[in-house]
Amino acid sequence: MTQVETFQVDLRDRGYQILVGPNLLCNAAQHLSPLIRHKPVIIITDSNVSRHHLEKLTNSFINGDIAFSVITLPAGEGQKGFEGLQNLITAILDKKPERSSTLVALGGGVIGDLTGFVASIILRGIDFVQIPTTLLAQVDSSVGGKTGINTQHGKNLVGSFYQPRLVLSDTTALDTLPQRELLAGYAEIVKYGLIGDKDFFEWLEQNGKALVGGSQNHRKHAIVASCQAKAKIVSEDEKELGTRALLNFGHTFGHALEAETGFSEKLLHGEAVSIGMVMAFDLSVQIGICPPKDSAIVKAHLTSMGLPIRPTNVPDQTWCSDKLLRHMAQDKKVHKGKMTFILTRGIGDAFITSEVSTREVKALLSKAIAI
Amino acid sequence: MTQVETFQVDLRDRGYQILVGPNLLCNAAQHLSPLIRHKPVIIITDSNVSRHHLEKLTNSFINGDIAFSVITLPAGEGQKGFEGLQNLITAILDKKPERSSTLVALGGGVIGDLTGFVASIILRGIDFVQIPTTLLAQVDSSVGGKTGINTQHGKNLVGSFYQPRLVLSDTTALDTLPQRELLAGYAEIVKYGLIGDKDFFEWLEQNGKALVGGSQNHRKHAIVASCQAKAKIVSEDEKELGTRALLNFGHTFGHALEAETGFSEKLLHGEAVSIGMVMAFDLSVQIGICPPKDSAIVKAHLTSMGLPIRPTNVPDQTWCSDKLLRHMAQDKKVHKGKMTFILTRGIGDAFITSEVSTREVKALLSKAIAI
Repeated sequence: MTQVETFQVDLRDRGYQILVGPNLLCNAAQHLSPLIRHKPVIIITDSNVSRHHLEKLTNSFINGDIAFSVITLPAGEGQKGFEGLQNLITAILDKKPERSSTLVALGGGVIGDLTGFVASIILRGIDFVQIPTTLLAQVDSSVGGKTGINTQHGKNLVGSFYQPRLVLSDTTALDTLPQRELLAGYAEIVKYGLIGDKDFFEWLEQNGKALVGGSQNHRKHAIVASCQAKAKIVSEDEKELGTRALLNFGHTFGHALEAETGFSEKLLHGEAVSIGMVMAFDLSVQIGICPPKDSAIVKAHLTSMGLPIRPTNVPDQTWCSDKLLRHMAQDKKVHKGKMTFILTRGIGDAFITSEVSTREVKALLSKAIAI
Repeated sequence: MTQVETFQVDLRDRGYQILVGPNLLCNAAQHLSPLIRHKPVIIITDSNVSRHHLEKLTNSFINGDIAFSVITLPAGEGQKGFEGLQNLITAILDKKPERSSTLVALGGGVIGDLTGFVASIILRGIDFVQIPTTLLAQVDSSVGGKTGINTQHGKNLVGSFYQPRLVLSDTTALDTLPQRELLAGYAEIVKYGLIGDKDFFEWLEQNGKALVGGSQNHRKHAIVASCQAKAKIVSEDEKELGTRALLNFGHTFGHALEAETGFSEKLLHGEAVSIGMVMAFDLSVQIGICPPKDSAIVKAHLTSMGLPIRPTNVPDQTWCSDKLLRHMAQDKKVHKGKMTFILTRGIGDAFITSEVSTREVKALLSKAIAI
């Protein structure tokens, strides 16, 4: 039987545990109970997730004597803006929370990012627990304390660094996830191999299909490896002053692609990252610091898994390199007017640089959208 | 000539300096320059404050080679809500800030609280500098890092703990302040004497009139004493887990009064605190822990200065003790359903307790609104 694996994210007084394994939703109460300082807890979820997972969680709370109330938001990225923020805060304040209250985020990245942000600012900060139900949220947004909302200017431009008290990543919960979303999450897992762990990338080449196919053990291994890689970087650089930027590998390009598609269903975040990582490899090859064969290996693996690797893989979308460049210039990672890029010397060897000329980037963008 | 006085607020890696003295606005650039990492800085002010003070500040910036842009908000507490928050964030993002950008809050508590909150969440946190232009802001909201906005549920229910990089308190700027606002700020100064410094209260009895009358030296002394008293408490308890609650002396009652008057011009925050402090003394006398003569001395001083000491001093307002009690029960400081009170054993000897029966509070409220 697959066991639950536990590890600690070290962040001084804001450290917390991540539990990964099957059926954690059904056993949530036993893990949460020691942390609850005030009842009822407030569960925040969305209409899709609640259909699949809410009853398991609330049954566990009932059996574990944790009083709760539930706020169910409409599903989708549309909630992650000013209006959704205000609506959620109002709904929570209606329940008269105290500073010792706990929010429980049950859902994907939108629910986690929004709930985490609200927890960080309501009554100037209350506790929250993450129960991520998508692969993307389990390997990415549930670790590291980045919370936030989108504005008309771009994604996550408003938010905070705020750590959960506990993360429960239930690998069984992924069984209800559409294949396309599972794959999008898988792209972020590949990222951890590409930025700093060639062995893990090679393990993924061997085992990626089993993971996506439903093996609880393979999922657990990949989720734990991803979270540990991320936790290590985050604990060294919580506020993203230096090495944490490595985690943005593929993301500067990816965000620009997402912005152009209006952050819609047309291109999921993980799909954008998949394409963005290939663009980062191609830019590295173009400026002569990365062997072309590494780029080819990455493309082959992502393609074999069913992930897009080029902007032109996105259906019904035309691209303009100038527009993409403008989105990139608006990114949070711009410093003194210079764009920061995460480039690579090969698989498992990414690094941060702001020494890429706009001319090189333009050339790469033009090539990428022409293929 | 009156010199500028400087002191340090100790908060580990988030410590900062407060400068107090005349003509700091005209010399702002020399103090800010070492802190500016990215230009232009963005000045946030309101339409009232800008008329009196903006030109002095911008002249200093021009002479000091600090490029800047200005966002001028409508004046008033009405800006300190969700809509004002969104409008300000949008206006700032229009200017394409970077993580190393600096916001400069020029104004009273509304501008300071709102700008501080926005600084804490825009791009997940950028620098901000406070230039408080009201006495209330100089002695209270510019120290301690509490930022926030109001919601329909109450005041400051959404916000963060976020420290400025520098505070410039220009005592000359107070010359343009209406007498009523000056007095409202003075009430918060009296608070520092009442909670922990009997000598300072006695100094105020002697010198309060000179301070309000315009003496730069008296102002400086009182502002520095107030800020140091607050800074000492805040550095011991930044997140208000314990002793910081002392600073709420008079505020639980005061907030309820403000809520009932709709946070309007009818009752300024400092006036509400003045009445609230008297109510805290009277409650302490009622339950037999404070000598009646101390309460009488406090009332005499506040009255001699021209401050209100009873709810019935507020013109055109009827009060209901049950409504006031309901507002108090909604306060952030409620813990496990129990209200926290700051009571006193006498002038300079306040303490925190949650052991006050609702019956005693009701009796006090009924008496207070009947006089």
